[in-house]
Amino acid sequence: MLTNVMDYRSKFSNSQLKALVFDAYGTLFDVHSVTSICDQLFPEHGAALSRVWRVKQLEYTWLRSLMGHYKDFWQVTESALVYACRDLNLPCRPAMCARLMDAYLHLEPYPEVRHALNALADYPLAILSNGSSRMLHSVVESAKLQGVFSLIISADEAKIYKPSPRVYDLVPRKMGLDKAAIGFVSSNYWDVAGARAYGFWTCWVNRANAPGDELGFTPDVIVNTLTELANVVKPLWI
Amino acid sequence: MLTNVMDYRSKFSNSQLKALVFDAYGTLFDVHSVTSICDQLFPEHGAALSRVWRVKQLEYTWLRSLMGHYKDFWQVTESALVYACRDLNLPCRPAMCARLMDAYLHLEPYPEVRHALNALADYPLAILSNGSSRMLHSVVESAKLQGVFSLIISADEAKIYKPSPRVYDLVPRKMGLDKAAIGFVSSNYWDVAGARAYGFWTCWVNRANAPGDELGFTPDVIVNTLTELANVVKPLWI
Repeated sequence: MLTNVMDYRSKFSNSQLKALVFDAYGTLFDVHSVTSICDQLFPEHGAALSRVWRVKQLEYTWLRSLMGHYKDFWQVTESALVYACRDLNLPCRPAMCARLMDAYLHLEPYPEVRHALNALADYPLAILSNGSSRMLHSVVESAKLQGVFSLIISADEAKIYKPSPRVYDLVPRKMGLDKAAIGFVSSNYWDVAGARAYGFWTCWVNRANAPGDELGFTPDVIVNTLTELANVVKPLWI
Repeated sequence: MLTNVMDYRSKFSNSQLKALVFDAYGTLFDVHSVTSICDQLFPEHGAALSRVWRVKQLEYTWLRSLMGHYKDFWQVTESALVYACRDLNLPCRPAMCARLMDAYLHLEPYPEVRHALNALADYPLAILSNGSSRMLHSVVESAKLQGVFSLIISADEAKIYKPSPRVYDLVPRKMGLDKAAIGFVSSNYWDVAGARAYGFWTCWVNRANAPGDELGFTPDVIVNTLTELANVVKPLWI
């Protein structure tokens, strides 16, 4: 199932890319960089709070999408935080909740992100994320990555979340490109599966050396960090 | 948010029920009754395998539904098992996988189920579950609950999973009832939220005394076990 970087060239020599689109949370920005502030507010519970918060955040995007009761990612993230605190029996007062939510606007990029994106500066780069427009612009600005992306696209424009094809469909529509010419990069396997099912060329960033999910769709290529990406995509460019 | 059994009468005196519909997995049947066979095959890993298997089973139903790539619950359950074994580094040979899958056809009902359903024998009872028709009939037969339910409805008829409203909509269509006259009972909070959003009267069976999810919809009533159900629904019946 897995394709390592060494043999992607022969397998994907037919792919011709015109733009590279990145997922944000978990791919460019480390959602667990909130752990330190979680630990400050709830000593020894930081890692657990960060973990349950993220699990429920994703779960709520899928459930609300399926129920047909969309709320934007800020509201979903806040609901997930409320649940996580209740689940772990942590008394989260409004001011603490506000500090934790604020941390989501200043997530740290993974260490290799800036250098890896610099190496891709010749290509049109974009973001496609579940995050609301305000959240995405804040986190990009906070990481000093303004100007790197020609477009920042939020699922909020489709009022549904990934992996609905309606979200991925925002990219070709807004960029005026055929979907087969779009390379999509995510650390979330289910996001890669959704993008592949939709019709993008896909790259899974598997930092944790985790097994891939069994969803019937596999990434075109797998890398361990974004640093490998420039070499991977170079021969695929039109 | 929560309504305990003591004050449901005043709050829900306007509800008039004509049928009671049960979720199957986690509500009538204990999905973690596979733990003992998991432990036989993989000593000391039974609980972890059962847990990851269930988490991924649910996740894959939501993801495949959102992706628009439905596979039936037997296939999703098998995919989740394959992932869980890989994640936990357990070598699951085909014969072992077959034994574990077979266990899903013979899940144990929760201890109070038979008695609680007997106390409701005067009312039309049905099942609405993600399970395929074959899986549901097997597990009902294995638990000797044939004849208890006037209808066993599978999400397979809608080719999408809960909490999509298209699944809940199978019930009024097949029973010829208005959705407001249907009481829906589930131990899965997200299932209750989906059913409530669709328009059913809902009861959450909170055996684990867990916090409810933050999905914008709350159950009409909460019980700790199905034993309490007969007293709860009696005054709501037409």
